[in-house]
Amino acid sequence: MAISYRLADIAAQLGGRVLGDTEVRISQIATLERAQPGQISFLTNSKYRAQLAGTKAGAVILGESDADATALPRIVSHNPYAYFAKVSALLNPLPEARPGVHPGAVVGAGAKIDPTASIAANAVIGAGATVGAHSIIGEGCCVGTNTVIGSHARLYPHVVIYHGCVIGNNLIAHSGAVIGSDGFGIAMDEGRWIKIPQIGRVVIGNDVEIGANTTIDRGALDDTVIEDGVKLDNQIQVAHNVRIGAHTAIAGCAGIAGSAVIGRYCLIGGGARILGHLQLADHVEIAAHTLVGKSIREAGSYAAIFPFTKTDEWRRNAVHLRHLNDLVKRVKALEQELEVLKRK
Amino acid sequence: MAISYRLADIAAQLGGRVLGDTEVRISQIATLERAQPGQISFLTNSKYRAQLAGTKAGAVILGESDADATALPRIVSHNPYAYFAKVSALLNPLPEARPGVHPGAVVGAGAKIDPTASIAANAVIGAGATVGAHSIIGEGCCVGTNTVIGSHARLYPHVVIYHGCVIGNNLIAHSGAVIGSDGFGIAMDEGRWIKIPQIGRVVIGNDVEIGANTTIDRGALDDTVIEDGVKLDNQIQVAHNVRIGAHTAIAGCAGIAGSAVIGRYCLIGGGARILGHLQLADHVEIAAHTLVGKSIREAGSYAAIFPFTKTDEWRRNAVHLRHLNDLVKRVKALEQELEVLKRK
Amino acid sequence: MAISYRLADIAAQLGGRVLGDTEVRISQIATLERAQPGQISFLTNSKYRAQLAGTKAGAVILGESDADATALPRIVSHNPYAYFAKVSALLNPLPEARPGVHPGAVVGAGAKIDPTASIAANAVIGAGATVGAHSIIGEGCCVGTNTVIGSHARLYPHVVIYHGCVIGNNLIAHSGAVIGSDGFGIAMDEGRWIKIPQIGRVVIGNDVEIGANTTIDRGALDDTVIEDGVKLDNQIQVAHNVRIGAHTAIAGCAGIAGSAVIGRYCLIGGGARILGHLQLADHVEIAAHTLVGKSIREAGSYAAIFPFTKTDEWRRNAVHLRHLNDLVKRVKALEQELEVLKRK
Repeated sequence: MAISYRLADIAAQLGGRVLGDTEVRISQIATLERAQPGQISFLTNSKYRAQLAGTKAGAVILGESDADATALPRIVSHNPYAYFAKVSALLNPLPEARPGVHPGAVVGAGAKIDPTASIAANAVIGAGATVGAHSIIGEGCCVGTNTVIGSHARLYPHVVIYHGCVIGNNLIAHSGAVIGSDGFGIAMDEGRWIKIPQIGRVVIGNDVEIGANTTIDRGALDDTVIEDGVKLDNQIQVAHNVRIGAHTAIAGCAGIAGSAVIGRYCLIGGGARILGHLQLADHVEIAAHTLVGKSIREAGSYAAIFPFTKTDEWRRNAVHLRHLNDLVKRVKALEQELEVLKRK
Repeated sequence: MAISYRLADIAAQLGGRVLGDTEVRISQIATLERAQPGQISFLTNSKYRAQLAGTKAGAVILGESDADATALPRIVSHNPYAYFAKVSALLNPLPEARPGVHPGAVVGAGAKIDPTASIAANAVIGAGATVGAHSIIGEGCCVGTNTVIGSHARLYPHVVIYHGCVIGNNLIAHSGAVIGSDGFGIAMDEGRWIKIPQIGRVVIGNDVEIGANTTIDRGALDDTVIEDGVKLDNQIQVAHNVRIGAHTAIAGCAGIAGSAVIGRYCLIGGGARILGHLQLADHVEIAAHTLVGKSIREAGSYAAIFPFTKTDEWRRNAVHLRHLNDLVKRVKALEQELEVLKRK
Repeated sequence: MAISYRLADIAAQLGGRVLGDTEVRISQIATLERAQPGQISFLTNSKYRAQLAGTKAGAVILGESDADATALPRIVSHNPYAYFAKVSALLNPLPEARPGVHPGAVVGAGAKIDPTASIAANAVIGAGATVGAHSIIGEGCCVGTNTVIGSHARLYPHVVIYHGCVIGNNLIAHSGAVIGSDGFGIAMDEGRWIKIPQIGRVVIGNDVEIGANTTIDRGALDDTVIEDGVKLDNQIQVAHNVRIGAHTAIAGCAGIAGSAVIGRYCLIGGGARILGHLQLADHVEIAAHTLVGKSIREAGSYAAIFPFTKTDEWRRNAVHLRHLNDLVKRVKALEQELEVLKRK
């Protein structure tokens, strides 16, 4: 934990313009309120400028428009939030994993594990599976038969990937994530549900992150596809044959029903629901807790949230929703009657 | 993967009427768009008839009303969707598991494991538990003490079943499913919550499927009961003392609160919520993302979804929900005043 | 399971006033409907008094106002529901775990495991981690490097706690719970998301219970904090930097977005959503399936639920929500025109 950099070193690596003392040494990143000398902080929104006054930070990252808002040593960036992310990564490198297979792991016949990969205790790598260079398979993870995982993956403990899936490079998957489980495919036959075999795969691009306890079902016939750069938070459900476009980010507890196609660079809020077989254009934003019940062809921001109130007040108001059509008819009748009266 | 059948063989096994060349060999099933020669496809809805024209499929499954919609070799069935499911199962048999207990598994004292059952690496079978004939317990699964699992179960990796539960035959449980965890039972006592021991069980019938990361809590005093043929998708929460009637199907992310009783052959949409202690009749359908706040005595389809719009438009409209009761009063006042005016 | 107590013994241990035969022996607790002789039942709400008549229970727990509602042997308590919880705990002690580390567990260098603690098969305790006295770490659990767990914890199988977290005493965590996974922190940089390292911890107080498959993310910079006595049901998502006040209880499937601060003694309903950076006062109750979109400064009960109806009826009513603002304008126009008419 003795990593530290001079401000000048940081800018040399990450770009940006240094103002003030370029020699100040930085060992950690922190909020303006909590930062200590020797730590760097950041201002990503000019409206919090006032917080600069009280900070004990040794240096600050800020945008061009705030370049002169403090006399502290500082790095000016056109995108201070991304710069903060990069500085934090520089100061907090992930722990290295020791290459090799832990003696408590189980590796199936014909599995190809790159010698630079790390397979932790109690992990199970299925027959014929592939684990790429520098990938880390955490404790208790299960990688199904013939599944292919690219390089530099980081699977935290207890990730399960079923058989036959294909994963690109740089996957991060958090504990409890399940990839490739059967889609929910059933057919009613004389009073009983018959299972529809789910013979598609899950195909995941590069640079994808999958949150804890998120589930991604394999396709029924064709594949479920997660394109490059998609970021999924915790407890998201992705049903069979969904396609999520590149660089789309989805917040926790969202659910995407079967065969929905989500565009690129979409932002889906927490707990939102996208119904099956719908299509969302690129750059669509869906508010939290919103159900999307038909396709969206146009980029933009969409919402459907019932505004909360005190429960008594809610009860008084909500009861009328069961009679809204009647209310509209009454208003229409009033308009017509008034028109008659006015003509008299 | 060299399985193939003549069309005549398929019909001999599964019924249906063959039209055209009965000798064509079929090795896989696929959508009309993707099917190749040697593959069979299916048309389950007449409105997609046009897709028949372009398909490269070697044969097609279709309904009576579409029997003459193509000249391809075909099987005509009164339920082409169920027929498709059966053909897919025929062409895609599940991999067999080797009977026996993997040396990396842990089996408690007095556990009874049928010699035809398969216990995978890192699975833990509790003391006194029973695993029936031909059941497959996947990698890392935990079966609690004295839990009974019937025959032909298939537990994918990392399923946890707590102690004392009773599971019928043919269970399919996907990774991360948790069965028998404590119900959420707490009592407030002088400013602190006291835990109410959850001493009921989970009792599951035959032919049940449970999705990835779905949770089913054990009962507080009596049991939580899942009847025969129930199908649960991923990430569903079933609280303590719930009863789900036979052949009910529930989509992903739904939540059933404590002591709710769901009828038979219900269909519960994704993300729907059923509040505690309610009763739903048989054959009730609940739309996705709908909260059910009182019992439903009558079969039928029910919904409560706020229609989504562009966020600006939503904001303009939704604000009035906080004043809907006032609006209704204003309309009533208008009606009364107009009545007075008309009488003049 | 031969535990039994005389009614007098129970009252001696737990307080309350015994009426009737103090010598009756009690071996289990059950509902009024199901209780058998030798079992104790309870009446926690006077409106169910009628059920007392038919019960076969050997004794009953009830409140002061119902003290004379039965002639059965009984214990009168000012809080019969909490009393029931205590009696159930007395009659259903948790199974003891054998102290020590199972040979199939893996313990990292420098981990400190109290000799009274129990580490089950396939559990992995990270380097430098601490497990306190009498704590039970279930099968397949993973405790991250340098994480500290207090005394009397009970982790059911397959709980994952990431590195560097701090957990108080008496934690109960159910299977599939994930504590300390990365928060969902990403920054857009030239068309790609950059990951923001999540360097905070999860800090959990004493007497906390965490349900199956619930996820609690570590903080981005500062910590995520769960205070004493918090009770979390299954499948709850707690995002990074959330603080949940002491003795708050949250029902299944709720989601708390990043940096939200929930007060003490709050009750959050199932599937509710609290948006990021909001604050909820102490003693706030949120109805199930309600989205909270702004801070709540005042104790009380809040709701936002669309009332369900038959789907046909819902469709007729809900369509008008897209035009509610127009409807309000029409009513306003009517009021103005009527005013003009009345003046004539």
